Amino acid sequence: MHDEKRLPGYVGSRLDRVDEIRSNPALLARTFADPAASCVLLDGLDPVIADGVLVMESLPSDAVIEDYVLLGVGPDQRPIFARLIDRAEGGFIASSRSRNVVDEVSADQAALYAGARSLVDWHARHRFCAACGASTRPHKGGWARKCEGCDAEHFPRVDPVVIMLAEHKGRILVGRQHSWPAGRYSALAGFVEPGETVEEAVARELKEEAGITVRDIRYVMSQPWPFPSALMIACIGQAEDDALKLDETEIQDAIWCDAEEIRAVLEERPGAPFIAPPPMAVAWHLLDHWLAHVAPVKASA
Amino acid sequence: MHDEKRLPGYVGSRLDRVDEIRSNPALLARTFADPAASCVLLDGLDPVIADGVLVMESLPSDAVIEDYVLLGVGPDQRPIFARLIDRAEGGFIASSRSRNVVDEVSADQAALYAGARSLVDWHARHRFCAACGASTRPHKGGWARKCEGCDAEHFPRVDPVVIMLAEHKGRILVGRQHSWPAGRYSALAGFVEPGETVEEAVARELKEEAGITVRDIRYVMSQPWPFPSALMIACIGQAEDDALKLDETEIQDAIWCDAEEIRAVLEERPGAPFIAPPPMAVAWHLLDHWLAHVAPVKASA
Repeated sequence: MHDEKRLPGYVGSRLDRVDEIRSNPALLARTFADPAASCVLLDGLDPVIADGVLVMESLPSDAVIEDYVLLGVGPDQRPIFARLIDRAEGGFIASSRSRNVVDEVSADQAALYAGARSLVDWHARHRFCAACGASTRPHKGGWARKCEGCDAEHFPRVDPVVIMLAEHKGRILVGRQHSWPAGRYSALAGFVEPGETVEEAVARELKEEAGITVRDIRYVMSQPWPFPSALMIACIGQAEDDALKLDETEIQDAIWCDAEEIRAVLEERPGAPFIAPPPMAVAWHLLDHWLAHVAPVKASA
Repeated sequence: MHDEKRLPGYVGSRLDRVDEIRSNPALLARTFADPAASCVLLDGLDPVIADGVLVMESLPSDAVIEDYVLLGVGPDQRPIFARLIDRAEGGFIASSRSRNVVDEVSADQAALYAGARSLVDWHARHRFCAACGASTRPHKGGWARKCEGCDAEHFPRVDPVVIMLAEHKGRILVGRQHSWPAGRYSALAGFVEPGETVEEAVARELKEEAGITVRDIRYVMSQPWPFPSALMIACIGQAEDDALKLDETEIQDAIWCDAEEIRAVLEERPGAPFIAPPPMAVAWHLLDHWLAHVAPVKASA
């Protein structure tokens, strides 16, 4: 179902997040009691799919709102919830089921799953107050937790990550981590840190991981990445030169590739210099964007 | 000192964040013992300034690394730390001293302060493990905390926030919150939520707060905002129409302004339709960017 030419995975939600209901206990109770309300079934943090759609359940008659997060209201006006769990295993791991969901259901359902996964995982890992250590409980329809000790409110995390290509004289830089499948290369990436801009984070990560200095950094696109709750911010920067100095604890190898090589990679041609990340990853779209919009056009043979 | 035409406040760090030292206890100990090492003096979370520079102290002879965060190494190769505190008041509040720092010291020093403030505040509000409630202690030179109960590692938060202009037929939308000084308007803004892109967050916030539907959303720039630790992501989107429907709990008023009006605002002319946010805010630069790069050029009179 996933249209690889259009959007990265987990993008394309059609939910109205109904912010105005979350903070209004009366409206929230009415929404929770709506007979049309349903709940996205999860198996731990994994999706459950039947006949090409996410399995949805009705809410049990004895359900209580504090066990659920209100994901939003669909285009059909039906409220959609996810059930919170006390313990989530593998929040940082993209299981094959959680990755494959983008190929098995519609883009908007994959986006619905991604939001549910991030929120359910966050609640399971934030049952105590980081400020005082007391228990916290879900609040505002699952969009916050409130401390039973000091009354502090805590909000779901979104961790911005930069993912980027350095470009130099018509070639771009891709690298691979030690743990990746043989032959796989992708854009380099890293978390944005407190006190820096997107552009400063891009420059720092390329310097740290590959020894490359970049300028003229341009934003290309973004993607939510629910492992556990990243916001991938994809960019392209201009490298001052192509001499690499790899941080070998982070990066096993990095190579410069020209447009013909990247075309061969994306078309999965025999002899392509590496295996691309899957089209559900924003890195695939970043390579595709570079090829379509930035790469030098080769003179026809 | 702040060059308002160039960059928003807190942008322009010249620190090397020395990621390779943080995770290496031997290198970290050597860096902490460097006689050239110094510590940014803070008063609670506020900066301390003398003669146009941040006051820096040497590390006491009995200092222990777990009481400090390694901010990085300056262009002069001197390591710079900040001292952690057990309790930080007002992390979410931009005090006048913490705002004025951008006018009183160089851009790179204001950026140094911003990173220090976010990290010191994060440590003070994260002394316990959100997963199990046990105590945590600083780890990796202050770039993580580790749980003494369950061994979980916790990392400093960076909260992405979208801040944006909607454009419609040569005019842009600005709004004001109830609590703002009289006459002040600015770009609308809101936190990016789990499971959405930057562009989806921009569209959602404009819909929620002003009833405006936007498309063709373009990224403009970003800024760290250390109150307590936001990453401001500034964008412009094209509104489908200009009919407003305000969320009056969030927004007191919103108005459409043309290029002449925005020019009058930024030049602080008498009769300008509103008072701009200060040049240290990315919103000022977003208005300036729109005027310089996007706004329709008026036919000469």
